[in-house]
Amino acid sequence: MPMPVPGFPEAAMIVCLFFIFLVPLAGVGISLINAGLGRSRNAGHMMMAAISALSIAAIAYFFCGFAWQGFIGRPGHILILSGKSWNWIAAERFFFRGLALDGSPASLAALLQIFCVGLAALIPLGSGADRWRLRASCASAALLAGWTYPLFAHWVWGGGWLAQLGANYGLGHGFIDAGGASSIHVVGGLSALAVTWILGPRRGKYSSDGMAPAIPGHNGVLVLFGCLLALLGWFGLNSAGAILFTGGVPAQSVLVAINTMLEAAAASLTAAVITGIRFGKPDASLSANGWIGGLVASSATCAFVVPAEAIVIGSIAGALVTFSVEWFELRLEVDDPGGAVSVHAIGGIWGILAVGLFARFHSPILNVAGSSIPVTGGAAPGQWLAQLVGVATLIGFVLPLTYILNWALNRICPFRVAIEGERQGMDLYELGAGAYPEFITHTEDFIPR
Amino acid sequence: MPMPVPGFPEAAMIVCLFFIFLVPLAGVGISLINAGLGRSRNAGHMMMAAISALSIAAIAYFFCGFAWQGFIGRPGHILILSGKSWNWIAAERFFFRGLALDGSPASLAALLQIFCVGLAALIPLGSGADRWRLRASCASAALLAGWTYPLFAHWVWGGGWLAQLGANYGLGHGFIDAGGASSIHVVGGLSALAVTWILGPRRGKYSSDGMAPAIPGHNGVLVLFGCLLALLGWFGLNSAGAILFTGGVPAQSVLVAINTMLEAAAASLTAAVITGIRFGKPDASLSANGWIGGLVASSATCAFVVPAEAIVIGSIAGALVTFSVEWFELRLEVDDPGGAVSVHAIGGIWGILAVGLFARFHSPILNVAGSSIPVTGGAAPGQWLAQLVGVATLIGFVLPLTYILNWALNRICPFRVAIEGERQGMDLYELGAGAYPEFITHTEDFIPR
Amino acid sequence: MPMPVPGFPEAAMIVCLFFIFLVPLAGVGISLINAGLGRSRNAGHMMMAAISALSIAAIAYFFCGFAWQGFIGRPGHILILSGKSWNWIAAERFFFRGLALDGSPASLAALLQIFCVGLAALIPLGSGADRWRLRASCASAALLAGWTYPLFAHWVWGGGWLAQLGANYGLGHGFIDAGGASSIHVVGGLSALAVTWILGPRRGKYSSDGMAPAIPGHNGVLVLFGCLLALLGWFGLNSAGAILFTGGVPAQSVLVAINTMLEAAAASLTAAVITGIRFGKPDASLSANGWIGGLVASSATCAFVVPAEAIVIGSIAGALVTFSVEWFELRLEVDDPGGAVSVHAIGGIWGILAVGLFARFHSPILNVAGSSIPVTGGAAPGQWLAQLVGVATLIGFVLPLTYILNWALNRICPFRVAIEGERQGMDLYELGAGAYPEFITHTEDFIPR
Repeated sequence: MPMPVPGFPEAAMIVCLFFIFLVPLAGVGISLINAGLGRSRNAGHMMMAAISALSIAAIAYFFCGFAWQGFIGRPGHILILSGKSWNWIAAERFFFRGLALDGSPASLAALLQIFCVGLAALIPLGSGADRWRLRASCASAALLAGWTYPLFAHWVWGGGWLAQLGANYGLGHGFIDAGGASSIHVVGGLSALAVTWILGPRRGKYSSDGMAPAIPGHNGVLVLFGCLLALLGWFGLNSAGAILFTGGVPAQSVLVAINTMLEAAAASLTAAVITGIRFGKPDASLSANGWIGGLVASSATCAFVVPAEAIVIGSIAGALVTFSVEWFELRLEVDDPGGAVSVHAIGGIWGILAVGLFARFHSPILNVAGSSIPVTGGAAPGQWLAQLVGVATLIGFVLPLTYILNWALNRICPFRVAIEGERQGMDLYELGAGAYPEFITHTEDFIPR
Repeated sequence: MPMPVPGFPEAAMIVCLFFIFLVPLAGVGISLINAGLGRSRNAGHMMMAAISALSIAAIAYFFCGFAWQGFIGRPGHILILSGKSWNWIAAERFFFRGLALDGSPASLAALLQIFCVGLAALIPLGSGADRWRLRASCASAALLAGWTYPLFAHWVWGGGWLAQLGANYGLGHGFIDAGGASSIHVVGGLSALAVTWILGPRRGKYSSDGMAPAIPGHNGVLVLFGCLLALLGWFGLNSAGAILFTGGVPAQSVLVAINTMLEAAAASLTAAVITGIRFGKPDASLSANGWIGGLVASSATCAFVVPAEAIVIGSIAGALVTFSVEWFELRLEVDDPGGAVSVHAIGGIWGILAVGLFARFHSPILNVAGSSIPVTGGAAPGQWLAQLVGVATLIGFVLPLTYILNWALNRICPFRVAIEGERQGMDLYELGAGAYPEFITHTEDFIPR
Repeated sequence: MPMPVPGFPEAAMIVCLFFIFLVPLAGVGISLINAGLGRSRNAGHMMMAAISALSIAAIAYFFCGFAWQGFIGRPGHILILSGKSWNWIAAERFFFRGLALDGSPASLAALLQIFCVGLAALIPLGSGADRWRLRASCASAALLAGWTYPLFAHWVWGGGWLAQLGANYGLGHGFIDAGGASSIHVVGGLSALAVTWILGPRRGKYSSDGMAPAIPGHNGVLVLFGCLLALLGWFGLNSAGAILFTGGVPAQSVLVAINTMLEAAAASLTAAVITGIRFGKPDASLSANGWIGGLVASSATCAFVVPAEAIVIGSIAGALVTFSVEWFELRLEVDDPGGAVSVHAIGGIWGILAVGLFARFHSPILNVAGSSIPVTGGAAPGQWLAQLVGVATLIGFVLPLTYILNWALNRICPFRVAIEGERQGMDLYELGAGAYPEFITHTEDFIPR
């Protein structure tokens, strides 16, 4: 099967290489945010879980993940349905066999994915903070990286059926998501939701009198520092994704980066203003959540909107995340210490939909093999419907799938730490050592004795 | 109007792109240094102010900043004075309209500036630490990024009158500053000075008996870690600036990086030796200040000196910063917790002057549109005078301008937090939550009760 | 003398430039790990020692280090021995004179080395933690960067006698180490061992009753965060090294990066599993050590093995480091708080040997001047022997050399801090200020009064 990108110039390879190596910083940033938003007695555990999840995700993706995900124009399992051929899952070999690691788009995509699955696997850690056993979180990361993520990513980034909605049914250019708002963030965020449901809230979070006391993170500096590092990771993610998964050119990175920056900025300022108005003082941790929510939304939209639109999209993302955090915490009693569900799932869904509302296409979109749909320089008719089908698939298929997988895993390898562990803190209970052994900390403040 | 850089090769675009994405690390480093040099009860506030300043600066620059700054060879408002044409301010449109985001030098410069104005806006935060209201610091950042910075940067980097001093009056190649020692650091440092004057010293800093007790930073590890991250940012800043604003070639980055590293190293060691001799023990926070001071000086000089000269320039920068911090703190009673004025304004002025003393030019300097001045491979006659005019403009024009703007802003939106806020700490008072809620800290040590 | 790499394409220069600027992150990561694994009262001192060591190493390497190291195909002192010509030491001039900083491979190698010698100089700091005087550690860094490192690096990376073992005696392609497992890590790790021997254990570490209480690091989050940053540095180190020192092409970076990631991942998980089995709970700091050990091993092997082999090599590295830390601490009574000897020396030796066991060569290896040895796409016969000669040289020559140099230095400038300093903590005693002045810490827990 021929390469779908016949002339992949050396310049594009070099630029992709460079952007790919920024991506791990997104994971580093999310790890620090997760650790900082949790309590000090769980901080070492959170970082250990992060480095383990990154490791396991990389190995699982290498083992079998790439075999299911594949790449545009490479072998896939095709099903003919009502006269159209649909690509359901890749037909690659395990262990990257059959994939030449030679700087081709497919090999660059494989390298990029090693970091992307790690990033997706970090997202549920924020939701499971303070109570998710290390062993279980590792097993869950393997499931995510080895199966759930690659399956959906094939549909979006591997020339699969969501990408084919354009060619097959004329829904714009098919489902479009240059930087992974859906495949990384909504998939990760919905897994976070499933994990939170399975784990249940932390002890003491929802007391019998209906109050839900805020449990503040132990290190606000770490959280905001993580936001800044994550920005760099997103520059890489969005630019590399736009080139590899939509056929963008290196020069497009200027637009992508400006939009990414402006969406994060607008989202964080919006969150600060909204919390300032509602609570009298701007809330730093919600502003941080807004910042990341803006970045998540930018992943879908950054390559196809003008900067002024990016500011609008970012502002809406910041507002959505701010309200969503409260809604999940107080209405749905979903105890998500890192706000991961709101930031990644809600922020990502908004980004996907915003593509339908705002995107304009000026150059060919290469998200399926073969000839692409002509671009008019304007909005693609039906694009919004393709995006909606993607969101429906995420909520209607990926959420149940990840819930069932994690539910089954919980049967084999219980997710929730013993009461004693929650009382002691995960660091001492699961790792045998605290992260900050020399600092006196208030250890049992939020646990009813 | 034709491009002044007719053949901007793809290789230069790629290298610029890469270096531009290192620049945010300079801002991250400065943010951590500011937070670490302040007190623990203000640390979350400092990081929140940093992320807000970066956001607002990016948006303000996108709104109107670029319209005033422009780029070499693009439209500007020209005034004919004594037979010479002078370029006073750019004539771009707001919101990046009219600017193709296509990888051209102008578009790369716009992207780079989004990070540079953020960096400049972070500098005053260090000086206003522990007492500057978040709202006021945001408004001040908008003024800096939307007006003061672009105006001066146009004169240096937009083909403006300072850059034209060479072509018009034969003062060397005109004012030269590849990496922003003047436009970013002196402008930021003088704004810091203005803000410090307006705010006045922290309560308890200058007691009635004339003593000025040192108020140590709360996290020395964060400060020195910030220095290391900033180094990476400066590699990007100096290399990208040399290519975009002086017509350098990618291969020059080797020289630029070696000089940048050696200037920082020499400056930090000099500060350590001087403080070791004077106080008996080397001072870590002054060494950190020296390191950044060396980086600031390198921004002006890195592309035009040999490595051995870089060591000399760096050593002088380190010495100057060390003495300057004490001089401002004790003689001038300028309470500048982050040492921002000394590091950025004094370090930057030294760097600008060092160009006049040390620079040799081996390839054409493209800092104005049209034909450049022939290079002889040696020093340019009159270069020192061009640099001196730049310094005089900074002190004689930019300092009053930024003082007046911030003074007026202070009338509308008071800068200084209420006494109660200073007593409680900015975190609790302005954000409603401390950065380290679980750690017991000495909270009121330095405040007279 | 002609360039050994006649057609060094611009693409390779750009990719090298980019990778070189990732390398400082390896040093940043190691600095944070060293600080985090030490005690809070020494944390500022450790960071100050790190920034000073990086500075001094850069300047010493610029002064004379490069003059001894040189580069493949550039002037060297040749000795004819039994009819073969051997290259013992470079014959460059001091202060980079004679080296055009023009983007040539030699100039890129010089820039890369400025960061590599800094990285090597950081390694002994971890071993000397809590008791090594700042002044002495600076002097030791100068010796390492100015003499020991360049000498050995010339033999490996400068076309020296170890690299010539292939051409002269048919031992494979001669000693091969693309990313510096030997020249950076084993040299640094053996210097760490020498320093530890000279310093002796910390007071209270080995009590009279034969117990060696663990002295936990003060900040586990910093340690694991440092691991993640170091990963990025290693991507740069391994990829740039493979291009500059073995004649690799930019596209090879995909393989290099995948292997680097998988080796770190496998090593850290192996360490977690082993400590989990042995102690009942996985040990976070040994997992961090494993992670870095895997990275060190990857430096030798990353360019010449397939990913599945990388996982095997990484797992073995993780196991070796885990047992080695215990062995050095309890059997040999080497008090190495950072585990630097095990991680860097043992991990590096394993990596070097693994090249002999696993490496396959598909493209010419350019580690000596002139025509290279033909590659067969398979293992090179005798390669294992070349690697063994390298290890023997490290243990039999470099270890005594670095021991003697540091022993002599200790006579002139005593290494060990006074008892009072160990009791007070290095921060207060040597720098006059603690890193965390506002946090209450348990200061004298582990010191017998």
